[in-house]
Amino acid sequence: MSDSLQLTAFSEIANRYPVVFFDSYGVLRNHHGLIPGAVETVHRLRRAGKHIRVLTNNAARSPAMAADRLAHYGLDGIFAEEIITSGATTRHFLEQKVKHGKVAYLGTATSAEYIIGAGLEAIPICEVSFDRLHEIGAVAFLDDEGYDLNVDINLLINLLRRCQVPVVVANTDLLYPTTANDVALATGSIARLAEYVLGRKFVKFGKPASQMFQMGLDSVAREMPDVCPGDILMVGDTLHTDILGGNTYGMATALVLSGNTRPESAATEIAASGIIPDYVCASIGQ
Amino acid sequence: MSDSLQLTAFSEIANRYPVVFFDSYGVLRNHHGLIPGAVETVHRLRRAGKHIRVLTNNAARSPAMAADRLAHYGLDGIFAEEIITSGATTRHFLEQKVKHGKVAYLGTATSAEYIIGAGLEAIPICEVSFDRLHEIGAVAFLDDEGYDLNVDINLLINLLRRCQVPVVVANTDLLYPTTANDVALATGSIARLAEYVLGRKFVKFGKPASQMFQMGLDSVAREMPDVCPGDILMVGDTLHTDILGGNTYGMATALVLSGNTRPESAATEIAASGIIPDYVCASIGQ
Amino acid sequence: MSDSLQLTAFSEIANRYPVVFFDSYGVLRNHHGLIPGAVETVHRLRRAGKHIRVLTNNAARSPAMAADRLAHYGLDGIFAEEIITSGATTRHFLEQKVKHGKVAYLGTATSAEYIIGAGLEAIPICEVSFDRLHEIGAVAFLDDEGYDLNVDINLLINLLRRCQVPVVVANTDLLYPTTANDVALATGSIARLAEYVLGRKFVKFGKPASQMFQMGLDSVAREMPDVCPGDILMVGDTLHTDILGGNTYGMATALVLSGNTRPESAATEIAASGIIPDYVCASIGQ
Amino acid sequence: MSDSLQLTAFSEIANRYPVVFFDSYGVLRNHHGLIPGAVETVHRLRRAGKHIRVLTNNAARSPAMAADRLAHYGLDGIFAEEIITSGATTRHFLEQKVKHGKVAYLGTATSAEYIIGAGLEAIPICEVSFDRLHEIGAVAFLDDEGYDLNVDINLLINLLRRCQVPVVVANTDLLYPTTANDVALATGSIARLAEYVLGRKFVKFGKPASQMFQMGLDSVAREMPDVCPGDILMVGDTLHTDILGGNTYGMATALVLSGNTRPESAATEIAASGIIPDYVCASIGQ
Repeated sequence: MSDSLQLTAFSEIANRYPVVFFDSYGVLRNHHGLIPGAVETVHRLRRAGKHIRVLTNNAARSPAMAADRLAHYGLDGIFAEEIITSGATTRHFLEQKVKHGKVAYLGTATSAEYIIGAGLEAIPICEVSFDRLHEIGAVAFLDDEGYDLNVDINLLINLLRRCQVPVVVANTDLLYPTTANDVALATGSIARLAEYVLGRKFVKFGKPASQMFQMGLDSVAREMPDVCPGDILMVGDTLHTDILGGNTYGMATALVLSGNTRPESAATEIAASGIIPDYVCASIGQ
Repeated sequence: MSDSLQLTAFSEIANRYPVVFFDSYGVLRNHHGLIPGAVETVHRLRRAGKHIRVLTNNAARSPAMAADRLAHYGLDGIFAEEIITSGATTRHFLEQKVKHGKVAYLGTATSAEYIIGAGLEAIPICEVSFDRLHEIGAVAFLDDEGYDLNVDINLLINLLRRCQVPVVVANTDLLYPTTANDVALATGSIARLAEYVLGRKFVKFGKPASQMFQMGLDSVAREMPDVCPGDILMVGDTLHTDILGGNTYGMATALVLSGNTRPESAATEIAASGIIPDYVCASIGQ
Repeated sequence: MSDSLQLTAFSEIANRYPVVFFDSYGVLRNHHGLIPGAVETVHRLRRAGKHIRVLTNNAARSPAMAADRLAHYGLDGIFAEEIITSGATTRHFLEQKVKHGKVAYLGTATSAEYIIGAGLEAIPICEVSFDRLHEIGAVAFLDDEGYDLNVDINLLINLLRRCQVPVVVANTDLLYPTTANDVALATGSIARLAEYVLGRKFVKFGKPASQMFQMGLDSVAREMPDVCPGDILMVGDTLHTDILGGNTYGMATALVLSGNTRPESAATEIAASGIIPDYVCASIGQ
Repeated sequence: MSDSLQLTAFSEIANRYPVVFFDSYGVLRNHHGLIPGAVETVHRLRRAGKHIRVLTNNAARSPAMAADRLAHYGLDGIFAEEIITSGATTRHFLEQKVKHGKVAYLGTATSAEYIIGAGLEAIPICEVSFDRLHEIGAVAFLDDEGYDLNVDINLLINLLRRCQVPVVVANTDLLYPTTANDVALATGSIARLAEYVLGRKFVKFGKPASQMFQMGLDSVAREMPDVCPGDILMVGDTLHTDILGGNTYGMATALVLSGNTRPESAATEIAASGIIPDYVCASIGQ
């Protein structure tokens, strides 16, 4: 069915919008390295005066580390200030809503920097004393590494059966690619399991939720005060995150076929899901 | 368990925030009329210079009609410009994302004003010609009245099996009260059924989704340019819409026990859902 | 991908099993009439001494009416005693579990015969007096016709908010075909909506649930006392009902591509759902 | 609300049925040991000539080991032949449906006896060679112990992305108690997570699914040939497994308040879930 999909050249549509938001993995780079043409495309957009942001469902790394990683792959000139992570929206929430107490977390020490950056104390779930649960002010699912899933998921469930505190999920992705053919459970899956067995709703960050789009818009507004969602092209490789979230936020959306959504099944997936991008492009390099 | 809930006087907490967002039904009024003390509370907030908005999951009436209805019940002085309906966020989406074509809808002629207000042509689902489906640019679930559910839900499902167009749901509420003891299916239920049998995801408006909170914030920013979510107290009677949405948006939240959430079961519902308001008040009048 | 599916001749596999269970719509007949070759196949199985049953998710008609309908289309020689409807399993449940009271129902007068056949009094939901709810002993979703969905779904929801009685769903199908291209909501969709808004679990009949398979096995056991599930070939056109239910019950399963599951997408649907038939056949006529 | 629940003496209702099915944990014993009065009740039922079976969602132990454990706690005289485990129904399925190949499993070596007992070869998921996936004939979730969840859940997901084989879940319980206040993830949770991220449906064993009830009925039929579901009283402590499954199977159901369902919340849980036992008893000892 993919022959029924009309592909548009990315350069042609990017011209129409003063602001471009890129997803990172599957759009700018993949497990091989940079998407061919990504460097030229980003530089061309820069020269044309476009405002660029990268929106990535990731709380494992800081924006600075994410910028360094892109540079390491060969895409320099993306500044940390232009990278919006789901970790950053989580930090913003913790700042606004959690005034005191320790934040118990599942994740690596690096991911916990998002808690510390909110002015709060971070404590790994395995170090929480069940005799002093009154000290816990919130719980955060940050990363899929840095703990023993066999033990710590049960600790977390038992803690939440005793404590009524806000629970935040810093990345709602279910799976992430580890090689061309393999995947691993991402933070969103672990959180979904805990929600399911507890019957609760956690506060979730990461596309398709709106906070990253809003943080991206607010960031652009410092350079372009009148920016509105209709000025923005959201470019992503995943229908359920980038495109659903971008559509709901009122932005134009471009699906690229260089990542999660494959050329041979894109038309079927769009029809089946009802999540309809404004444009479909082979990749940002074409 | 409700004895374990600590109730706070509403007047005391409202003082701490320059901006107050109210849900309407169950907070300002109920099936009997105004909540006792609502008029005095709103006037006191006015005198104290608070910025007030009403955020209501409703696409059946325009903001002006909603303001008239509050005045009819005795609460005057709420201006149409201060009322954010889920219909208005739907209209905003249609303006930004649907550039041409007719919008087929389920709802009353009054609710269709939200389509017409976006500069688009509205057509009831029962008048759509299946020979000319290329003319349809979007589909909207607006209201639970104005059509024959026996027939029109099947028309809509068959239309969506043929058309790949954006589908918007202008109100995600599942039920609404019709008397003290009775309820009726709201638009959100009808849309949920269609999503379920079609396996699709529609674009949804209404709390807990963020668009109304954002529209409320943008509206206040015209009076108070530096406003941020932490300046706002969201007051609602429903955990899954007002409180979940307010918490996620980073606002302070106050649950009132004058509507959907009852005093005798509030503590249990908070514990079971994990949706934790910052404050619990008997009503806005106390 | 369908080229990767290995098709088997139906006659070849049917030979291996002493008992064959057929789904009706999409297997024996469709909207055009009988599936080509169906008469010859059924007669050949008869001559070979096979035990035959028809298992149909349907509470709109009695087994006798269903046999008449097959004969009307040209397939005679299927006896009412060989037809297992989801209505019959519902009647069986009501006999065993509801000892007194009226059964309020959504459906036609014909479908209500399944209640009356259980020795109970049937009352359409629209005739229930809310002053005498103590008389209601159970509630049944029987058919998608025979009532006004606009009004009666709300009556039913309000009744169930007041009454703690068993609720049975006589057919879990979500949609049924009305023409080659069109569908309509089936009873299962209406029941699912009520479950969703009420947060309850109803007792459900119809494949993939086990009761019809058990009733079919019990029926064959009167002719073949030692029959076990491994003796039975379940033939169906729908992965989520016939094949999932047959697999779970321990029967061999054959998917035919003459109904809901289409040749061009069958391989993809099997892979995506993980519901794996033992055999795939073009139709029972081939 | 619990004062509105009418409690019945267990001895009184057990008299009315020739067959009694007991759940084990929460009914016969709990984390303290035997439920007070359990021994006397079981012996009284024996003397009265009742047919007794124990139906337990468990694939970690064989029926013989389960009988030994009950005897260890002080309840002797329950024979292995009277204990129906969800593992046994899983073994029965594997016998009927999987004719060749190795069965890759998550669980302990003890739980794998249910695979070996079906005449098949069992291989822990961590020992599966991804170069020889054609040798795998089925996948089984058996137990929550015996493997490293950090690694093996990802192996399993990647295996299932490559293989179309039947997947069975030998126990659908989500959590199990580890102490009076603590729980741990049970096999059903791990399987649910895999289903969710893969978008597939596995074949599930354990109450509320019907296979254990059927195996129990078949077992009693060897002593009492005409037994039907209406002759059986199912006694359990959990609404969503024992009572829902028993009701659906057409048996009488008795909820005991000595386990998962607590006296203070039983009435609310029954009303909220719509799962209505025929009787409610404090415990089988009263």
